Amino acid sequence: MAKLKLIVSTASLFCTRIEWALKLKGLEYELIVEDFKQGKSELLLKSNPVHKKVPVLLDDGVAIAESKVILEYIDEKWKGGDFCPLLPQEPYDRAQARFWAQFADEKCVFGVWGACCAEDGQEKEKAVETALESFAYLEKQIEGKKFFGGEKIGYLDLVAGWIPHFLGVLEEAGGMKIIDAERFPSLHEWAQNFNEVPLIKECLPPRDMLLNYITASLSKLRSLAANKP
Amino acid sequence: MAKLKLIVSTASLFCTRIEWALKLKGLEYELIVEDFKQGKSELLLKSNPVHKKVPVLLDDGVAIAESKVILEYIDEKWKGGDFCPLLPQEPYDRAQARFWAQFADEKCVFGVWGACCAEDGQEKEKAVETALESFAYLEKQIEGKKFFGGEKIGYLDLVAGWIPHFLGVLEEAGGMKIIDAERFPSLHEWAQNFNEVPLIKECLPPRDMLLNYITASLSKLRSLAANKP
Repeated sequence: MAKLKLIVSTASLFCTRIEWALKLKGLEYELIVEDFKQGKSELLLKSNPVHKKVPVLLDDGVAIAESKVILEYIDEKWKGGDFCPLLPQEPYDRAQARFWAQFADEKCVFGVWGACCAEDGQEKEKAVETALESFAYLEKQIEGKKFFGGEKIGYLDLVAGWIPHFLGVLEEAGGMKIIDAERFPSLHEWAQNFNEVPLIKECLPPRDMLLNYITASLSKLRSLAANKP
Repeated sequence: MAKLKLIVSTASLFCTRIEWALKLKGLEYELIVEDFKQGKSELLLKSNPVHKKVPVLLDDGVAIAESKVILEYIDEKWKGGDFCPLLPQEPYDRAQARFWAQFADEKCVFGVWGACCAEDGQEKEKAVETALESFAYLEKQIEGKKFFGGEKIGYLDLVAGWIPHFLGVLEEAGGMKIIDAERFPSLHEWAQNFNEVPLIKECLPPRDMLLNYITASLSKLRSLAANKP
């Protein structure tokens, strides 16, 4: 079997979720790390000509892009036997997992990023408030469960899995607070359960590197916004 | 078996795709039509408290929201035997269908809507140009095929299925032209194939009603924009 290849960048929460999935399935893979300071590689542009974004999974000559699409692909291609399932088995549970995964990306990831980028003051407060409302929905989903997937890590845990590690860094870079144990006790406990799993920890980018990267991205965005005509 | 219920509004392309899927599967269902002029119904607010949007499928006491999530649910719950599959069978083909469905919604639906809403002149030209670029990708996907799903209508046909009927109305309301036989011959041919299928036609909202609805929505949006502080 040709080895799987995964094109990533070093600080992308969308890439980390794919690494976790590959490890959960027990699959060998080679990481190809893009260095965006040098521009985008030929391989990336060829493999994902539409969006030109990481992650891209290369499997024996074919390329699959978009992180939630890749997760489903991995779950469908390597299933049964010793392969742990990522999505639940029942259609309704699968629909719920997909619904909340879409919600977590559209509302929580982009909600937090919006709050990060917002100007201090009223704009920031409003953006934080919007993000808090979204996290309150996720809090309800995890109440009384160890993982979103039940007793084991599943698809939705992987999609929401940026929260335990990346969110704190985004909060620090953006000068705001979203999650604490008091406001979101169940999400907080889930985050601790999640971070205790060794293969989850293995794929996390170092905190300092992540903070530098996000801080630099924010500065760049702000200076672009300030220089807008 | 409890009858399926589908909460819809009269002019929503996201609702029509679910009706098509239910008909393709040969399932009986009851339509519950929201009248947004009267506000949102209790049933809708209870069934989709997160987004408060149609379509919502009610299946024996559970509610499923978000149109692409509903399509996957329908395909997973009613499969095998006489039920025609919506998604392809092979993991890579499924990933491709999901990738392009996401693209068609994010880039084509919202691209066309953006072009509709854009001010005449440079803003409109730029928005139309962006939409054209997105449709050029879809054109490549359908080249040489009868349907996106191959010989039969599948998941991606349903997601892109607004193009043959709704797009012309959006073009008229928005004062622009996106699709013609010369620029996009394969999409044009596909649109004709698609519209010839009787069950597809059955669910389409009347053109006049659709045009009135879209024109009214655009006027409302423009007057809101004009009155912004």
